Amino acid sequence: MSREAPTGRSAPPPGCCPLYHEAVELIGRRWTGAIVATLLNAEPRSMRFGEISQAVPELSDRMLSERLRELEARGVVERHVSPGPPVRVTYGLTQMGAGLEPALVALQAWAQHWLDGDAQRAAGRAN
Amino acid sequence: MSREAPTGRSAPPPGCCPLYHEAVELIGRRWTGAIVATLLNAEPRSMRFGEISQAVPELSDRMLSERLRELEARGVVERHVSPGPPVRVTYGLTQMGAGLEPALVALQAWAQHWLDGDAQRAAGRAN
Repeated sequence: MSREAPTGRSAPPPGCCPLYHEAVELIGRRWTGAIVATLLNAEPRSMRFGEISQAVPELSDRMLSERLRELEARGVVERHVSPGPPVRVTYGLTQMGAGLEPALVALQAWAQHWLDGDAQRAAGRAN
Repeated sequence: MSREAPTGRSAPPPGCCPLYHEAVELIGRRWTGAIVATLLNAEPRSMRFGEISQAVPELSDRMLSERLRELEARGVVERHVSPGPPVRVTYGLTQMGAGLEPALVALQAWAQHWLDGDAQRAAGRAN
């Protein structure tokens, strides 16, 4: 008699699908989540490069530029050029990008509940 | 008269807070989102190392082991050891980890809607 309990073999869970994996890595790419959240919170929902840069102060302009190009290529962000002078270039979320709002709002709520609590518990232990 | 439109300078948007940024990068770290989703979908909500590995087939055992240690250190995953023989080691989400469900479910819905559509549009263009 085998002492090994039978393992519950089953199909890969739905959470593990390639599309989800792609989404989580798209959003989790360094600074991408912060840029998308910044654009979601912008009123009206478009911002100039310098405004995004100011809203995410630790992010270098080179990195911001690279991330915006990636997000544009993925269809998450769109770049608008209004003819000038002065020419005004702004960035906003596409409908696809705006569709990330529920996920990012839920993640933000989680962060505020759990990561802040972490800090509080750590502070409590330190006292 | 200046031709420059005034820029709407404002405080950093709430989405850009350090806690949110920490959360999005925690979840977006390579394979982390897939591991957490796999554990969320497990019934009962704990799995052996080999079961997780099987559910995320592209993930190497070395990387899975590293990610599980990180998630355990962050309080997202807990490791249970049931005394044997045979000793049975399982991994499950803590309450903090399970709290990620709404965000990950929303992200999964987004992925299915938008990334699948991408593929469909691309297929349409190719025809």
